[in-house]
Amino acid sequence: MNNTTRTTTDDAELHDAELDSPEPGDRAVDQARIDVADLGERLLGAWKDERLAARAKVANPEYHKVPDLTMAEHRERTLRQMQMLADDGAVNLAFPRSVGGHENHGGNIAGFEELVLADPSLQIKAGVQWGLFGAAVMHLGTDEHHRRFLPDIMSMKVPGVYAMTETGHGSDVASLATTATYDESTEEWVINTPFRGAWKDYGGNAALHGTAAVVFAQLITKGVNHGVHAFYVPIRGDNGDYLDGVGGDDDGVKGGLNGIDNGRLHFTNVHVPRSNLLNRYGDVTADGTYSSPIESPGRRFFTMLGTLVQGRVSLDGSANAAAKAALAIAIRYGDERRQFAGPDGDETVLLDYQLHQRRLLTRLATSYAVGFSHESLLRQFHGVFSGELDTPEQREDLETLAAALKSLSTWHALDTLQECREACGGAGYLAENRFTQLYGDLDIYTTFEGDNHVLLQLVGKRLLTDYSEQFRGADARKTVQIMVGKVALRILAGSGLRQAGQAFADFGSIARSAGRLRRPDEQYELLSDRVRTMVEDIAMSIGRARGKSKAEQADVLARHQHRLIETAKAHGELLQWEAFTNALADMPDDTTKRVLTWVRDLFGLGLIEQHLDWYLLNGRLSAQRAATVSRYIDRLVARLRPHAQDLVDAFGYGPEHLRAAIATGAEAERQDEARAYVEAQRRAGTLPVTEKELRRRAEAETKRAKEAAVTA
Amino acid sequence: MNNTTRTTTDDAELHDAELDSPEPGDRAVDQARIDVADLGERLLGAWKDERLAARAKVANPEYHKVPDLTMAEHRERTLRQMQMLADDGAVNLAFPRSVGGHENHGGNIAGFEELVLADPSLQIKAGVQWGLFGAAVMHLGTDEHHRRFLPDIMSMKVPGVYAMTETGHGSDVASLATTATYDESTEEWVINTPFRGAWKDYGGNAALHGTAAVVFAQLITKGVNHGVHAFYVPIRGDNGDYLDGVGGDDDGVKGGLNGIDNGRLHFTNVHVPRSNLLNRYGDVTADGTYSSPIESPGRRFFTMLGTLVQGRVSLDGSANAAAKAALAIAIRYGDERRQFAGPDGDETVLLDYQLHQRRLLTRLATSYAVGFSHESLLRQFHGVFSGELDTPEQREDLETLAAALKSLSTWHALDTLQECREACGGAGYLAENRFTQLYGDLDIYTTFEGDNHVLLQLVGKRLLTDYSEQFRGADARKTVQIMVGKVALRILAGSGLRQAGQAFADFGSIARSAGRLRRPDEQYELLSDRVRTMVEDIAMSIGRARGKSKAEQADVLARHQHRLIETAKAHGELLQWEAFTNALADMPDDTTKRVLTWVRDLFGLGLIEQHLDWYLLNGRLSAQRAATVSRYIDRLVARLRPHAQDLVDAFGYGPEHLRAAIATGAEAERQDEARAYVEAQRRAGTLPVTEKELRRRAEAETKRAKEAAVTA
Repeated sequence: MNNTTRTTTDDAELHDAELDSPEPGDRAVDQARIDVADLGERLLGAWKDERLAARAKVANPEYHKVPDLTMAEHRERTLRQMQMLADDGAVNLAFPRSVGGHENHGGNIAGFEELVLADPSLQIKAGVQWGLFGAAVMHLGTDEHHRRFLPDIMSMKVPGVYAMTETGHGSDVASLATTATYDESTEEWVINTPFRGAWKDYGGNAALHGTAAVVFAQLITKGVNHGVHAFYVPIRGDNGDYLDGVGGDDDGVKGGLNGIDNGRLHFTNVHVPRSNLLNRYGDVTADGTYSSPIESPGRRFFTMLGTLVQGRVSLDGSANAAAKAALAIAIRYGDERRQFAGPDGDETVLLDYQLHQRRLLTRLATSYAVGFSHESLLRQFHGVFSGELDTPEQREDLETLAAALKSLSTWHALDTLQECREACGGAGYLAENRFTQLYGDLDIYTTFEGDNHVLLQLVGKRLLTDYSEQFRGADARKTVQIMVGKVALRILAGSGLRQAGQAFADFGSIARSAGRLRRPDEQYELLSDRVRTMVEDIAMSIGRARGKSKAEQADVLARHQHRLIETAKAHGELLQWEAFTNALADMPDDTTKRVLTWVRDLFGLGLIEQHLDWYLLNGRLSAQRAATVSRYIDRLVARLRPHAQDLVDAFGYGPEHLRAAIATGAEAERQDEARAYVEAQRRAGTLPVTEKELRRRAEAETKRAKEAAVTA
Repeated sequence: MNNTTRTTTDDAELHDAELDSPEPGDRAVDQARIDVADLGERLLGAWKDERLAARAKVANPEYHKVPDLTMAEHRERTLRQMQMLADDGAVNLAFPRSVGGHENHGGNIAGFEELVLADPSLQIKAGVQWGLFGAAVMHLGTDEHHRRFLPDIMSMKVPGVYAMTETGHGSDVASLATTATYDESTEEWVINTPFRGAWKDYGGNAALHGTAAVVFAQLITKGVNHGVHAFYVPIRGDNGDYLDGVGGDDDGVKGGLNGIDNGRLHFTNVHVPRSNLLNRYGDVTADGTYSSPIESPGRRFFTMLGTLVQGRVSLDGSANAAAKAALAIAIRYGDERRQFAGPDGDETVLLDYQLHQRRLLTRLATSYAVGFSHESLLRQFHGVFSGELDTPEQREDLETLAAALKSLSTWHALDTLQECREACGGAGYLAENRFTQLYGDLDIYTTFEGDNHVLLQLVGKRLLTDYSEQFRGADARKTVQIMVGKVALRILAGSGLRQAGQAFADFGSIARSAGRLRRPDEQYELLSDRVRTMVEDIAMSIGRARGKSKAEQADVLARHQHRLIETAKAHGELLQWEAFTNALADMPDDTTKRVLTWVRDLFGLGLIEQHLDWYLLNGRLSAQRAATVSRYIDRLVARLRPHAQDLVDAFGYGPEHLRAAIATGAEAERQDEARAYVEAQRRAGTLPVTEKELRRRAEAETKRAKEAAVTA
């Protein structure tokens, strides 16, 4: 196979016949419909009741975002909504039973995710209060802290700030500059902000409502810095004024989430009691002697941060909820809206255009994949936090999985919101149709709870570590065996998702048949092989730097940064594909499963199309076969088109959740009215003839006259 | 060359040496700096004075966007700014001398583009008033209309609506449903909205401020529909109330541009005098007899629409102005901000990370390309509208060029704003740093003045038409000759850009040397060959449908819609690359030119990297050579990194234009303060030792003690 051969359309079309050859049952499906109710049940997942309860709340107009408020008004409204949520009690799901909670970690996140369709400001303010501020007290504090602080946090009596990020340090938490120095004489912590860059920044509740904060600071006692720990620090009195030594600033208007009063805080030698150290992972005695159940300062730090993984887990699901709602709106509109006359003179429905199918249905497939992988993530999260599956390895896997999936899904949400916005034209730009509002709010999801690029770099490094662990003590031959045989499995096992379990009979060979691309083992092979090979390539480059100076080694890794991030993305995409495929395995063999299998194929082949250069560059697909990928995608979107509305209906969002003027049937009504008007004019003979038609008639008349003259 | 060969990193690194081999002068440039002032002059282009005058205006705080206004307050503010602009008189540049204008079409657009950095709401409201409403009167009306209407339009005495788009019809203007029926008895036009879908929608000035509108409607006289024409229609009285028969609605809050009162209008048999038809391209006598200087209704329609190309031209430049400002802000911040310690313990400057360079500098290269291609577009626009170069072919080329470039640049702006936002983390999300505000405002630029996808489809169809014209009367052999030899030239000639003039010695051959990728003729060959081949492929598929039914032919084109759009994009990218290369040819052979040549290479190779799958699929690059493209880009961004700040400084925006808190040097100050603080503590011996360091010391101590014990 020579890659200088020009792939002509003719060549390619020979292979297309294969793609068109129906699998058993394909024809029947063209007529059949998916079972929307059954699919909807499946999509609700393990915490169906909590999701439905949250959706019922979201339906309440009191919780809805109102677009044209000033920042001050929006903040007030969100605060009122917070109190409603607190009074409702549903926010207590995750908290300890000792303080009236239910220790239902998965259900808590599932319900939380649904809030995004009320108003993302409410969701994130709730996330700050209960998911960060409250969760820090819960996970980093001990029983006494739970009793002292949690009830008022749960009831919103004490709105609080999660004061981690500083103006000078965001993702690099270990380098925070705020200090908490133990004063033995008073048995107090002295919280201090040494310079402007160490101001706490972007904290929700900081600008206005917060009366306390969990402040992350370098714990210093007896002249030793024991690293970042969390301290409970009151910041405002009952009158709303800062307490002595506390000051701050307002972050002002943002790109969205303006219902949240994000702001800055600084501390000038603020004293808090020794017992305000949240001391689960590190404590001092009255005389200032430090101790920790975790010996290594590095592992201690990551363990503390790891307890806060739920933020990333919840953003993964929330981002997809917004994407799914956007797709439900844009697909409904695309299924009703007509534009430009087709060859029969009738105007074409937008969703009948190939490009419109490409734009919306590929993203719909991704949202399905994100949904299934999120459900896996949520189960793993629940397993770890409920204690059912809580081992250090499970925690580490959970963190890697959450980092990979959150990055991909938050970008997917923005990409989908923007594409839906544009696919609906001017109507898509109006606040009443929600895309732009959700985009502005969700924009920040890509960099908070961990900048996506930083998170992916962590994932990439984890993949490299896993890879290098294969080689401990191995000789060269064994090295190669391990490299060829086991890496992909290790990577997958390390992902926390169970394996798809396919046979890898001719692993590494070129995909020989276009039709094979729709086989899941073939897709799996292509996707997993890419991850494995990319990891290997980087690892080998790094391996060559062994023995060089630390700076040179760092330089080698730095020069592969872009590739490392791409590798981490590829890994995350594989996990999504695998979760989708696992979900299919659980479904009965019916029309719904068949249609969803096409959706999975569209997702898988969409990934292969996106990375086609890699497959060609590395000889994994021949040019001839690669050329069929895009054509097969064109066929898949056409095949899915009749099921598009059903596939978004299965998300289960009602008009009270979508709340978009263009997704109410109004467009279909307008189209019907317009067509009825023209038809009535036509029937009545009052439709003006067009100049064009008149010219055609005149020409025909002239021609007839000439012919008549000739005949005469 | 077998494409099943695995391209190992080792293979690739062999070729990398070629990329690293310096061209004459490369080394010197590493030390030298570009001449920012000289480059800045060049970038100001042909209408430097008008640009600088507009930038001086933009510096006035009265014109600046204020983030936290309600929609009503923002509309009021924008209206006041409009009056200031009108009083200033600068908005009259394009209007006829007969009414006090200057007929300076290029200068008018150049100045208009700069307004985006004041407030895009002001820019677009100005665009509605003078660029659409006023320009329609100017271009579609005749002298009498100019005298009657233009003075009040220019002075803002009559704010007006450009009432083209309807709720039911956006990009498909020919299908508008509003009617203007001539009533011979009263010698009046009767403007009527037949159904809800025919309401005029999204019109600026429609919701509140407009007192007149240019209404596009189907002209009907003597029972014949002569197609869409424009009518001047008063809509509100002095008291602000609708006139009889006029009604409407407010579009409400949008994703941005909330300083503009977009709204809907409908007409119930509203009568206007016969002379209110803007009659340059079609008129009726008192008895209702229609006449037009353009015989064909189709050509007449496109001629009328074509006069309004300036909207697209101006968006191309405006979008890039926003992208350039965003890059200036993000690069300044990236050059000051530090995050995560490097191997020497010092924190690394963001812009020293490969990924950060990749994210920002590739987009910087695109902004340079967009800037140069925009200058070409603006000159062509001025040539046509000043009458200097006004032929039907030039007009048609201008429209194709504007459609291609506007689509690419408006997407580039959104992509760049979002990437800059994320590259600045939480700070990027604050309104005070502008990215999110500009994003919300510019979002709609991708679908107004023509939906980008619809525009690109027009470009694609033009390419096919040009292609098929080669074959008129040609036999099969000649067909092939033409196909192989001339198509690329024809396509380029049709673009209105002068040709780069390279020799195509081994056209179609595989790029044999990695080093050759930096040769402009090689880049040209790769980019232009791709356009040519993609056009050919679609044309051949369509050719095979010859003789089939109209519906089948339409189906073939429909099945290639996605590829046609990709082809149009490739064409636009080639035009951008060519304009950049032409601009380099005009520069003296100095450091600035050398650095800009790297920027051009980064743009060109960036395109080749984006479409690498195509080059591999079609055998235009071998796998081995293709693998070097990404590595060469990594080298280019590293090489450009020291010049990054100079390259954005050359855009010439001062702090009064950028107005971003993070682009004021504040971050550098904070970094300096933090480092000075730590250094002072270190010198004073008060810096707490870390637990980690303490453990290291303890271990060393134990080791020493053991050794001492052994020695003793």
